[in-house]
Amino acid sequence: MAVNSRPPHPVILGQNQYGKAENRVVKITRDGATHHIKDLNVSVALSGDMDEVHYSGSNANVLPTDTTKNTVYAFAKEHGIESAEQFGIHLARHFVTSQEPIKTARIRIEEYSWERIETSDANSKFIGADEVKHSFVRKGQETRVTQITYDGESWEVISGLKDLVVMNSTNSEFWGYVKDKYTTLPEAYDRILATQVSARWRFNWSDDEEKMPSWEKSYEQVRKHMLQAFAETYSLSLQQTLYQMGSRILNSRSEIDEVRFSLPNKHHFLVDLEPFGLKNENEVYFAADRPYGLIEATILRDGCEPKIPVDLTNL
Amino acid sequence: MAVNSRPPHPVILGQNQYGKAENRVVKITRDGATHHIKDLNVSVALSGDMDEVHYSGSNANVLPTDTTKNTVYAFAKEHGIESAEQFGIHLARHFVTSQEPIKTARIRIEEYSWERIETSDANSKFIGADEVKHSFVRKGQETRVTQITYDGESWEVISGLKDLVVMNSTNSEFWGYVKDKYTTLPEAYDRILATQVSARWRFNWSDDEEKMPSWEKSYEQVRKHMLQAFAETYSLSLQQTLYQMGSRILNSRSEIDEVRFSLPNKHHFLVDLEPFGLKNENEVYFAADRPYGLIEATILRDGCEPKIPVDLTNL
Amino acid sequence: MAVNSRPPHPVILGQNQYGKAENRVVKITRDGATHHIKDLNVSVALSGDMDEVHYSGSNANVLPTDTTKNTVYAFAKEHGIESAEQFGIHLARHFVTSQEPIKTARIRIEEYSWERIETSDANSKFIGADEVKHSFVRKGQETRVTQITYDGESWEVISGLKDLVVMNSTNSEFWGYVKDKYTTLPEAYDRILATQVSARWRFNWSDDEEKMPSWEKSYEQVRKHMLQAFAETYSLSLQQTLYQMGSRILNSRSEIDEVRFSLPNKHHFLVDLEPFGLKNENEVYFAADRPYGLIEATILRDGCEPKIPVDLTNL
Amino acid sequence: MAVNSRPPHPVILGQNQYGKAENRVVKITRDGATHHIKDLNVSVALSGDMDEVHYSGSNANVLPTDTTKNTVYAFAKEHGIESAEQFGIHLARHFVTSQEPIKTARIRIEEYSWERIETSDANSKFIGADEVKHSFVRKGQETRVTQITYDGESWEVISGLKDLVVMNSTNSEFWGYVKDKYTTLPEAYDRILATQVSARWRFNWSDDEEKMPSWEKSYEQVRKHMLQAFAETYSLSLQQTLYQMGSRILNSRSEIDEVRFSLPNKHHFLVDLEPFGLKNENEVYFAADRPYGLIEATILRDGCEPKIPVDLTNL
Repeated sequence: MAVNSRPPHPVILGQNQYGKAENRVVKITRDGATHHIKDLNVSVALSGDMDEVHYSGSNANVLPTDTTKNTVYAFAKEHGIESAEQFGIHLARHFVTSQEPIKTARIRIEEYSWERIETSDANSKFIGADEVKHSFVRKGQETRVTQITYDGESWEVISGLKDLVVMNSTNSEFWGYVKDKYTTLPEAYDRILATQVSARWRFNWSDDEEKMPSWEKSYEQVRKHMLQAFAETYSLSLQQTLYQMGSRILNSRSEIDEVRFSLPNKHHFLVDLEPFGLKNENEVYFAADRPYGLIEATILRDGCEPKIPVDLTNL
Repeated sequence: MAVNSRPPHPVILGQNQYGKAENRVVKITRDGATHHIKDLNVSVALSGDMDEVHYSGSNANVLPTDTTKNTVYAFAKEHGIESAEQFGIHLARHFVTSQEPIKTARIRIEEYSWERIETSDANSKFIGADEVKHSFVRKGQETRVTQITYDGESWEVISGLKDLVVMNSTNSEFWGYVKDKYTTLPEAYDRILATQVSARWRFNWSDDEEKMPSWEKSYEQVRKHMLQAFAETYSLSLQQTLYQMGSRILNSRSEIDEVRFSLPNKHHFLVDLEPFGLKNENEVYFAADRPYGLIEATILRDGCEPKIPVDLTNL
Repeated sequence: MAVNSRPPHPVILGQNQYGKAENRVVKITRDGATHHIKDLNVSVALSGDMDEVHYSGSNANVLPTDTTKNTVYAFAKEHGIESAEQFGIHLARHFVTSQEPIKTARIRIEEYSWERIETSDANSKFIGADEVKHSFVRKGQETRVTQITYDGESWEVISGLKDLVVMNSTNSEFWGYVKDKYTTLPEAYDRILATQVSARWRFNWSDDEEKMPSWEKSYEQVRKHMLQAFAETYSLSLQQTLYQMGSRILNSRSEIDEVRFSLPNKHHFLVDLEPFGLKNENEVYFAADRPYGLIEATILRDGCEPKIPVDLTNL
Repeated sequence: MAVNSRPPHPVILGQNQYGKAENRVVKITRDGATHHIKDLNVSVALSGDMDEVHYSGSNANVLPTDTTKNTVYAFAKEHGIESAEQFGIHLARHFVTSQEPIKTARIRIEEYSWERIETSDANSKFIGADEVKHSFVRKGQETRVTQITYDGESWEVISGLKDLVVMNSTNSEFWGYVKDKYTTLPEAYDRILATQVSARWRFNWSDDEEKMPSWEKSYEQVRKHMLQAFAETYSLSLQQTLYQMGSRILNSRSEIDEVRFSLPNKHHFLVDLEPFGLKNENEVYFAADRPYGLIEATILRDGCEPKIPVDLTNL
């Protein structure tokens, strides 16, 4: 066995991080016969004094990714899962404060929602209402996400959601745009506007001394304001709708300083039915897959520095 | 250009079908300012006198798949989309009765559900309640499916759903099973039971002379009974739960003669926390991806012939 | 705990099967410093005397799915993995012959191919050629599949592949088709023909007394003939190409009696560049996702009964 | 129709970009009977003076995403597709130089490789070798990617690949790591090391005055060196292997200044066969899906500033 040593060439190590990704943890809390569920997908990324493991393969500073996995499951028992954000804060603090070589921890969590299955009246009498307080159906719809970063001094919490598909079947126009030699698009005065919302919002909480936001309530409210802004905006462009969604959030939720959206314009093309002697009065649409417009922007509170990465999608 | 002709070898053509798959049609119906939406994915498969196109490439009997696509969109205008089943019936009848070489048509449809976005009180006053009767959020959760087959004489309608994820966090046991030399599984007296329901049910309606079921109401009721049976069954095996789900449907819905389920047992393993000095009292689970148990069965009304294909999943 | 018993209503159990699906087994065989790899995804489905587990939840006849998983891994050691087909035969025989209640076993296997990474000349001198006989890159391209079914008396082996994407950039036409009131498609005299091949072929081997085919060689040859038939057919319709692919296999491989194809017509539309003053001489295409034509057919040896299921794709 | 105007609250617009994503363009080049194919997925993102479209919905500065799509197809004809990088450079230059409000263009391209189908000897004599120079099979394996960014003055080209799955079946160890109270992992002295390589490398070419690299040759060479470094490194940690892969590239290819890797540790767990009386001598492995270790790092030439984004994967 030959140990590779650092090459003589002027090649150096830049930013690096490691950890166990996609730890699927389900936590059941029993309140008598009534059960509660938290269903998370937790990814740990640690960084710090890790040069040697890259140069020589020495693992002397490396807490195994297997250990970070174990910690996720142990913490679900030790601390419970009050919210994804709170759980991530417990984990990030632990890694940074318990291992000297680890300087920064970033915890990413996806959360899947469940709702209760309603019981039949007949059976609930027969078996007792309590008997079915343990049955759930996965809610589908959006996936809630959060990312907690801690460097031993201050916190950054970016929460959000993805895969929330919304549509306005009217109150959307698109006209008055630039026309160059490659432009063939006719102007539209009544179109469908549909998108699959990917959004991230950054909390201004960063200091253990400050009171934390109520993570669960904040999520519900942000989601509600975002949906309402989408529904209530008479749209001349998806960019305008995006801006309204973001400003509605910032104007309603003081705990948030910045929002980033990645909004694919899920095109619904009016089908030409004239060859068949039919008139399509904004009734029948072809829902296209690709290509799609992709509109991305950050909305932030004046005076705040933008910190959410520009690219929510992969290179 | 050389035309390939039928080879001298004794090789023959068996069952064959063709058509356009996955036509994504969205139909908006305007009831004043209130819009309604039907969002379907329609696949057409036709069969009949199609030997020659296989042997020599002659398309003389072939209605192009592009035409079957056009027909889907034209019919959305001409007939509307009352339900996926009714829409499929219109299409299947058309292809079989309008083209002599086509003997059988099979229409498969996926349907995606949408619910309305609730408006903010403040804005609904300002902009008028009607203004936001056109805003929707995709429901997520299960995909509704149907398959309509017509041979010019009788109908077969198989409806169903897929990707409905359910969980009981207790009231499930598994013990008393066969043990051979490869058996290591410990018996379980309180486990999570979770599955991603794929179900298909066959209607006994087959004749144009009979009254059709109410397709929309039937779907709602079948889904409700299936979920309730899942929730209310104290389970000693996933097979038992499956049987209860199927028999509950057949006992509640006289329009249905047969149900087929494909139920992956989505394992949630209790994490061993003892190495960390913690006791896991049915609280913390690892949700595994693969492998998974796969339980499949048909439940049918006595005296009826099973017709739903055994394999809902691919080879 | 109440045990559910069989309901009074005339609802009965039909076909049923169970087992562990998607067991991912990787087998390394060391031939000195040269390693060989088999990478499989094995799914077990057992059926037999299983009424009681559905009716009452009694597991007295149930070999746990966990045990079927263990058996897969143990057999990889005990029997090795000569080929996916041979491995499935070992497994199917075991389940049917070792457990009285089990009457039929169906083993489905996906196989992923790997090829060796070539070593740099400089390093192979330095470290010795043998040192790098253990490095592989996954081949990508198609997934090989097989399904072995055994009822204690006779065997059915259906092998195949999926996700093999092929394209002819010319030598394809489409014209002379039926035109009805919904037909708008212009005829094409030089088009791209592309498809993602899903194919299954059934071996005529069924009896332990007969000599088995050489599974590995058979696969290679079938794949080669299928690709060559695709490439060498001047196509007037995808159906014609399909037939040529199937008949080429049957005419070349006597061990096979039946082939089934599911061929999506992956449309490549010639882009209209005239609005930009450009002439598109079969150069620039838009590769569409959906909808797609779907052409499916069985080709079989005259006198043989078709046994491959008609639907390779899900309802 | 009410136009929403900029709200009085101190909410501002941050970074924003828009364009058409995932334009699937296939370019066939005919060299006599021999055809060549380029198969790309092109995404355009433009930014510049776009405040007004967000604030008021005015599209006066907006070149429609539909036009950016048209431009992709027109350029495939006008400029051909010599390489993904060269094609992206043509596009980026066009958008920035032809539209005053557009200040920056970022073009992302995925490329899918094809190889020729070999013809049967018999047929190639019969039909002539030229007849089958137009038949291709998609190569599978990795997807090649590139990102071109242009601000009117300088260029940034980051190329790479994703989904290249590699495995060493020996010459990998993992021991000597930190052990805390949550550590249970046993040390390993001979394990499988497998990963699905996602890599991006940045070219130091940035100025139109400088000679461009040979994009096609560079890709081939980087891929080769990366694979060889993976194969030839005796690994004490995946981090060490990553560093060797990166430094090998930088030491071999002077046109590249920086490499970023995201390497999931695709765990292959040795199956415990002792309960079945079998000894598993590094032969039988379970290939796990989730969780997985995730090792990410940048390797760069000393003195260069790192510019590849740290996160190649989504939040």
